[in-house]
Amino acid sequence: MIGYPNKKATYTVENEVSYSRRGMSLEDDINDTNKYYLEADIAAVHKKPTPITIVNVDYKSRSTAKITEAYFQVPSTTDYNGVYRGQYLDFEAKETHSKTAFRLAIIHPHQLQHLARVIKYGGIAFLIVRFVAHDETYFVMAKDLLDEIDRTTAKSIKYSWFKENCTLIPYNYVIKIDYLKVIDRLLDGGK
Amino acid sequence: MIGYPNKKATYTVENEVSYSRRGMSLEDDINDTNKYYLEADIAAVHKKPTPITIVNVDYKSRSTAKITEAYFQVPSTTDYNGVYRGQYLDFEAKETHSKTAFRLAIIHPHQLQHLARVIKYGGIAFLIVRFVAHDETYFVMAKDLLDEIDRTTAKSIKYSWFKENCTLIPYNYVIKIDYLKVIDRLLDGGK
Repeated sequence: MIGYPNKKATYTVENEVSYSRRGMSLEDDINDTNKYYLEADIAAVHKKPTPITIVNVDYKSRSTAKITEAYFQVPSTTDYNGVYRGQYLDFEAKETHSKTAFRLAIIHPHQLQHLARVIKYGGIAFLIVRFVAHDETYFVMAKDLLDEIDRTTAKSIKYSWFKENCTLIPYNYVIKIDYLKVIDRLLDGGK
Repeated sequence: MIGYPNKKATYTVENEVSYSRRGMSLEDDINDTNKYYLEADIAAVHKKPTPITIVNVDYKSRSTAKITEAYFQVPSTTDYNGVYRGQYLDFEAKETHSKTAFRLAIIHPHQLQHLARVIKYGGIAFLIVRFVAHDETYFVMAKDLLDEIDRTTAKSIKYSWFKENCTLIPYNYVIKIDYLKVIDRLLDGGK
């Protein structure tokens, strides 16, 4: 877990609200879910560390090198990948506060290209998209989203498209975002 | 590519030696190889970013947040993973300067546990081990190494074990460390 100073303060507040569904970010929910999958010994899916460029490291103390200058990089792949039932899984998670549409600008073109590659090489590529205002989290097949992006000239995809074409992932207190259930359905036939 | 200040200086020297096989680190060779696979449009394998804990970020300039305090974390997974021919690939790369043995201490227990998990969930788990003194790079099935670790009480695995049980990856100027050739052999039958 990366502790951005801004975020840290928010975490504390969230912990006080304790177990409120709305208080948790999508990232927190997915990390919790992946931890559950790992502990239940069914899948190994991890969030990749944030890519940064390190410019300066202070090696004064031999045991604890301190990075004193570094910058965030634009990610060239998605945030999550792993293995489940012999399948390569790869996905990006995004949340939007809009009630009506999902702005495409929040996904980097690199990431879309990466998802297209994963499909081509035989992996399962998807997105987990949360509409915070509707309190809904969708499992979106990357292929469906890429096709829709090809079809449209708009800079966003309407909420109704997600409602009609994607799978709603019900919220669960034990397995927060049980996306492997959707993968199971895909693998066991039928969409 | 992460530019540690120490490493940077070394790169410059290495570039002057130009194309010397010995001048390149195993990590550089693997990154080059993965770049080749990506550009040749056959596999998407990436090195994970170095996991760090960010303690302080300077947001003075809105566009370029500067990380001013961060620390290296112990990795909980391996360095590389990706997808090829519908398979999940996961591996760790290590080089040793010893002529006679590979010290097990240079692999974190977390990483061995992770490789065991990958095998269990149906991925292809391996290591790429370079004996710098012999100028040899081996493809090591994680299962073979884990079995050998179970069998021995020694803190290292002899060079002869690699010679007898692992696959030598020939060095190639175009595809530096063509490990997918070994994967092809695995997938197409035979070891």
